[in-house]
Amino acid sequence: MNGTSHAVLPAEFALIARHFRPLAGPGAFDLTDDAALFSPPPGRDLVLSTDAIIGGVHFLDDDPPDLVGRKLLRVNLSDLAAKGATPVGYLLTLAAPHDTPDAWFAGFASGLAQDQQEYQISLLGGDTTATHGPITLSLVILGHLAPGTMVRRAGARPGDGVWVTGTIGDGALGLAAAQGKLGDPTGYLRRRYQLPQPRTGLAIGGIASAALDVSDGLVQDLGHLCRAGHLGAEIEMARVPLSPPAQQAGAAWLSTILSGGDDYEILLAVPPDREAALRDAARAAGVAVTRIGDFRPGPAEVTVRGADGMPLRIEKGGWSHF
Amino acid sequence: MNGTSHAVLPAEFALIARHFRPLAGPGAFDLTDDAALFSPPPGRDLVLSTDAIIGGVHFLDDDPPDLVGRKLLRVNLSDLAAKGATPVGYLLTLAAPHDTPDAWFAGFASGLAQDQQEYQISLLGGDTTATHGPITLSLVILGHLAPGTMVRRAGARPGDGVWVTGTIGDGALGLAAAQGKLGDPTGYLRRRYQLPQPRTGLAIGGIASAALDVSDGLVQDLGHLCRAGHLGAEIEMARVPLSPPAQQAGAAWLSTILSGGDDYEILLAVPPDREAALRDAARAAGVAVTRIGDFRPGPAEVTVRGADGMPLRIEKGGWSHF
Repeated sequence: MNGTSHAVLPAEFALIARHFRPLAGPGAFDLTDDAALFSPPPGRDLVLSTDAIIGGVHFLDDDPPDLVGRKLLRVNLSDLAAKGATPVGYLLTLAAPHDTPDAWFAGFASGLAQDQQEYQISLLGGDTTATHGPITLSLVILGHLAPGTMVRRAGARPGDGVWVTGTIGDGALGLAAAQGKLGDPTGYLRRRYQLPQPRTGLAIGGIASAALDVSDGLVQDLGHLCRAGHLGAEIEMARVPLSPPAQQAGAAWLSTILSGGDDYEILLAVPPDREAALRDAARAAGVAVTRIGDFRPGPAEVTVRGADGMPLRIEKGGWSHF
Repeated sequence: MNGTSHAVLPAEFALIARHFRPLAGPGAFDLTDDAALFSPPPGRDLVLSTDAIIGGVHFLDDDPPDLVGRKLLRVNLSDLAAKGATPVGYLLTLAAPHDTPDAWFAGFASGLAQDQQEYQISLLGGDTTATHGPITLSLVILGHLAPGTMVRRAGARPGDGVWVTGTIGDGALGLAAAQGKLGDPTGYLRRRYQLPQPRTGLAIGGIASAALDVSDGLVQDLGHLCRAGHLGAEIEMARVPLSPPAQQAGAAWLSTILSGGDDYEILLAVPPDREAALRDAARAAGVAVTRIGDFRPGPAEVTVRGADGMPLRIEKGGWSHF
């Protein structure tokens, strides 16, 4: 401020202009206003989802910032994918310590830019602020779908198959690898932890009777589908799709694989007469899908059977933040 | 987790069910899903805005949690008010330390409930997570308006009056009072800091040529309107509306009043031929409006004139978080 007037932009606004304005899309007014304008395409319903990630909790302090940006977007894209929605844009709030280097913001924004391109979405608006705590990133993602086609957590019926995309356990094993607890010579597991693959291309509307993305752990998230649908589920460990590095990790890592979380694959309930449609959709999207068990009448409990047909004892039911 | 099944809800989900599910509205699926469904009413455009607040930065650790919840909602409602939008709902992300007492969440949620009622809005969805930093609250608010009527930051023209709602400076003085730096025998200033009054009832669409809410400080926010509109502004200190406690604070607090921020009043540009319409709208909403100066051609600079007509020297240009 000099004298009675100040035309110089304070650092906060310069930071937004430098790193985030290039990410702004239609309705964002170049991030120069206090609100964004957005409406879903005519005849489509709007879907909103939000996930926050925090330094030291959801990502590691030495994770490359571009991967942090991409992971933040992808965990939210994963939620839309599990609802059958097409992503369009997002709002971001970012709290960071005063001494966060400019290079961190530059890297973070470049990661967002890369995935905006990949998923054809843009930044609608946001807020930046200082914190004396860890970097805290919160993102609200917007998508749209045909009215009445949102796939809910509730809706699984007894006799529906339990299906999952991709492979399970890599994310949690990747965290263990990053922490030096597990060997990961190729870096595959760590990469899966840092950069999940949201299954946005898989068109599950009208096919899945229920779905969610696996973020808390396979067993816990299957429990969510059971509780929402008031039914049980039984899966066979031998059918759970594992990547080669996860297979090599061995039995000592079984509960991490089943309950560790951070998979960002889609867990679906699919009636038998729609299995062919699911396989067609999966082929079109280039995504592997595997039937790992069935939903059953009864209490909202998940049973995992080993190769001998006996129930496995799982030590840990997945992540809970409180 | 017991044996092979787990029907018991982990603490995180119990916390959501106990405190936040009662706040959920249409499209929120009782917070049991991963996404919310929402579309603006037919023929209306959707407006989105987001603001985050952080313990120790935007609120004090001993602030009553219900007031923290209400302030969080109100700073966001204030953004919608300044755009001429009608609020409908919000998404919330909440990061809190593990040892946050349940009573804090209960109080926070009760504050949200109270203001949901007052402003006729509901919770659409959110995310809760643990942090080793301070309580970090991020809210995205959704509103709607008639297409083409959103009041932008850009749009002020030379000759437009500079108008402001309510009184200026109370929020920043209230913070000083809460910190023991300023007497506040009636608690009025502190209350204004803790519980801003968003001017959601004031219908400024079609009246204001530009607007924003005063959160960074009157002078700095007027500078935002100037930069967005590529023009200057001149205001007279004697016209700036002050509450009786702010008047009593005296000249030593002048720069706090003008630049301290946290007012959450609306700063508007209004063409002379719409002043009558503004006064009518203000009367209908029960909100005071005051013309404090004018926009002028020239560089994007703000001049504040004292009673003697001389420019005042302002020491601090308002808040910047980086």
